[in-house]
Amino acid sequence: MGGFRVLESFRGRDVISILDFTRRELEELFEVADEAWKLARARPLRGRILALAFFEPSTRTRMSFESAMKRLGGETLLVAGEEAISVAKGENLADTVRMLDAYSDAIVIRHRFEGAALYAAEIAESPVINAGDGRQHHPTQAMLDLYTITKLFGGVDGLTIGVLGDLRYGRAAASFLLGLTLFKPRMVYLISPPQLRPRRELLDELKSRGLRFQEAELADVLEELDILYVTRIQRERFPDPSEYEKVRGSYRVTLDMLERQAKRELKVLHPLPRVDEIDYRVDGSRFQAYFTQARLGVPLRMALLMGVLGGEA
Amino acid sequence: MGGFRVLESFRGRDVISILDFTRRELEELFEVADEAWKLARARPLRGRILALAFFEPSTRTRMSFESAMKRLGGETLLVAGEEAISVAKGENLADTVRMLDAYSDAIVIRHRFEGAALYAAEIAESPVINAGDGRQHHPTQAMLDLYTITKLFGGVDGLTIGVLGDLRYGRAAASFLLGLTLFKPRMVYLISPPQLRPRRELLDELKSRGLRFQEAELADVLEELDILYVTRIQRERFPDPSEYEKVRGSYRVTLDMLERQAKRELKVLHPLPRVDEIDYRVDGSRFQAYFTQARLGVPLRMALLMGVLGGEA
Amino acid sequence: MGGFRVLESFRGRDVISILDFTRRELEELFEVADEAWKLARARPLRGRILALAFFEPSTRTRMSFESAMKRLGGETLLVAGEEAISVAKGENLADTVRMLDAYSDAIVIRHRFEGAALYAAEIAESPVINAGDGRQHHPTQAMLDLYTITKLFGGVDGLTIGVLGDLRYGRAAASFLLGLTLFKPRMVYLISPPQLRPRRELLDELKSRGLRFQEAELADVLEELDILYVTRIQRERFPDPSEYEKVRGSYRVTLDMLERQAKRELKVLHPLPRVDEIDYRVDGSRFQAYFTQARLGVPLRMALLMGVLGGEA
Repeated sequence: MGGFRVLESFRGRDVISILDFTRRELEELFEVADEAWKLARARPLRGRILALAFFEPSTRTRMSFESAMKRLGGETLLVAGEEAISVAKGENLADTVRMLDAYSDAIVIRHRFEGAALYAAEIAESPVINAGDGRQHHPTQAMLDLYTITKLFGGVDGLTIGVLGDLRYGRAAASFLLGLTLFKPRMVYLISPPQLRPRRELLDELKSRGLRFQEAELADVLEELDILYVTRIQRERFPDPSEYEKVRGSYRVTLDMLERQAKRELKVLHPLPRVDEIDYRVDGSRFQAYFTQARLGVPLRMALLMGVLGGEA
Repeated sequence: MGGFRVLESFRGRDVISILDFTRRELEELFEVADEAWKLARARPLRGRILALAFFEPSTRTRMSFESAMKRLGGETLLVAGEEAISVAKGENLADTVRMLDAYSDAIVIRHRFEGAALYAAEIAESPVINAGDGRQHHPTQAMLDLYTITKLFGGVDGLTIGVLGDLRYGRAAASFLLGLTLFKPRMVYLISPPQLRPRRELLDELKSRGLRFQEAELADVLEELDILYVTRIQRERFPDPSEYEKVRGSYRVTLDMLERQAKRELKVLHPLPRVDEIDYRVDGSRFQAYFTQARLGVPLRMALLMGVLGGEA
Repeated sequence: MGGFRVLESFRGRDVISILDFTRRELEELFEVADEAWKLARARPLRGRILALAFFEPSTRTRMSFESAMKRLGGETLLVAGEEAISVAKGENLADTVRMLDAYSDAIVIRHRFEGAALYAAEIAESPVINAGDGRQHHPTQAMLDLYTITKLFGGVDGLTIGVLGDLRYGRAAASFLLGLTLFKPRMVYLISPPQLRPRRELLDELKSRGLRFQEAELADVLEELDILYVTRIQRERFPDPSEYEKVRGSYRVTLDMLERQAKRELKVLHPLPRVDEIDYRVDGSRFQAYFTQARLGVPLRMALLMGVLGGEA
């Protein structure tokens, strides 16, 4: 239970942005995640209920939380899909949050709107965990990304990291970048099509937090990278399909490209699901780390749930 | 476990109408509900399965049952939404009920058709709990309403109660009125638009059971009320939208109105979800009791499930 | 726990086709199924998670697995309906299987495509259980059918069995027939409309495995039968609705027909759901065994899950 005590600062806390946490807190979280399977044997969250409110679909994030909670002996209550849509239509979000709050011990929420999780947290008495809202925040994904890097490289400091894809609308990439500001990577390269460059506010935030970063082309920096974090470029972001087709090929990671230019130790991450931005031939190569990353989602979220819901339970 | 013994008459029983129960039985149920959280610690329904068959959507009722069952250590099997619709299309209700009966220890059913729960109860060997069918029966909602009043006022007898909204098609209001006949309120005022007055059969039933009631306008009786039970008026009930618009304003409860006319102690109830029939400014006022009511749904249903499924479990 | 030890050969194994098992293994499985309720009391699968991935709907099979897993103290993770459709659209099956594999201890999969379960099994580290794929394999249904017959008649050998309905596209019938090749029925009659006769490959397989079978008309063989296994004839299989109407009546089992021609001991099975291929008047008669069969789905699947996931858990 030692693993628990160190997460005392997580108890009862809302998880809205990765920036709600200090580097030290994240490192403690990762230590507990390393022990999660062992700690789970005592079923520490038996009798506790986690509400999962997915007003926007995300099968991976949903199942990952559900699996984590159940591994710890807890239970879940799900509202998602058509049902979530019709709940959202039928009443205001505040009433829905009060309902979830009445039926559970903590609420995981995913919502299309910026600020929805924070708003829910203001209404609910129970802790609220943001499973993605708006274009910027997806803190448990960022925790998972940083945890994966810590497992792979022993830490984040000193690494050279490329972040590729939609840096404008993709909340996984934005959250990851914000999370990186809590650490000291050597350099972060932002690699995106012109239409999907990061928003001004994000760049300002990264700068003001002292992150060393610059925008770049993949070909120019690939050989320097320890980590290549790939995200999906969605066709729907391009008003003109031909623009998408033009851009697409240049942001597709192939095994040839990696074998030609990348360091032997380079690891490719991806929050998944992917469409075709990573060549399937990378799957079986030494560069692949995205499946490892996906697997770590369960112990990371187990640790977080033990922290937030933990204690005498 | 003393709390259990007093619910012996609930064991294995179907819950179809609030009128299936005596006043004494409901009072025993409420006493167990008061102890529900404490009794849950022993996880008395471990290994038991509750099937939830929602052929008509109701997120609140569904989640409330699911939370109650899981708090008691039990498990649930859900069929709802599109799946429920296609099951209902694919075979007759009797076959579906037999399936649920084969896979669970008790069945919660919600269905659009009058009598569906009773029909299910005739087929299933396990107990069937009506989570709302047709226009008249929603017994667990009525139990919850009466329980809430008991918590707020120490009992139902002697109170003056207004029931406002759709008294013609709304099953929550009808069930609540039937439930009131088991007690002795001083007076019950029925407050509804002309198009949504209670059906003859319901009025006859209330009369033959000796309930003191009369139809009234809200403005005329508001100052007398201890309880104002509000239900939703659905636009779809009005063939002509302009009729709806005419009627709507007169059945909307505002904070101004309450502060001007109501007793200090008046409490507003609502089965939820609401649309705009209660001004949001009431939420933070002393009159609001609908969120309290929603929260009591879990312990009330825990007590009921312990009663129906209880025993050696 | 003796029941467990005999299922050692099931441990960690994929369940793709009924032909993956020997007669002796199935008989051991049936013995454990007989004890399943007793074995469940120890909650042997506590802390284990079963993923249920239904890319094609099947409420009965889904709920039966879910009930079995929960009876054993385990938990489930479901992806079905619209969500499954959109997962399937959003990424390739391999990535989805890897996700399920990361979040659970075993995967139940139902899929429209021939070979989908085998493909999933090649990717997943955890055992994969086929809950129906393509037109031929639905091994747990076949196990259940054979188990039901064993319960009713003490075994399968020496029985005369009619299999009626869609023998061309119906995977339940095909799996059942393949399963019968592991036993020694006296004779198997294949009774289907000309348009829905078994495919050549299936007939060849049955022949090469030494099953004694022949095609027949129901009226000609009914009096010989011990078992009549009925499956649904779907209107959609007939390009011309009038052909369907012509054929339909001759493949409908009525109580009159059974009382006139069948042995007293004949039992009618059906994988369910049925539409109108069995007269409802059969339900209350001595011939009905399809509801018994449905009920046996839970203990049979409990036994299978204990076998596949069992051990120290």
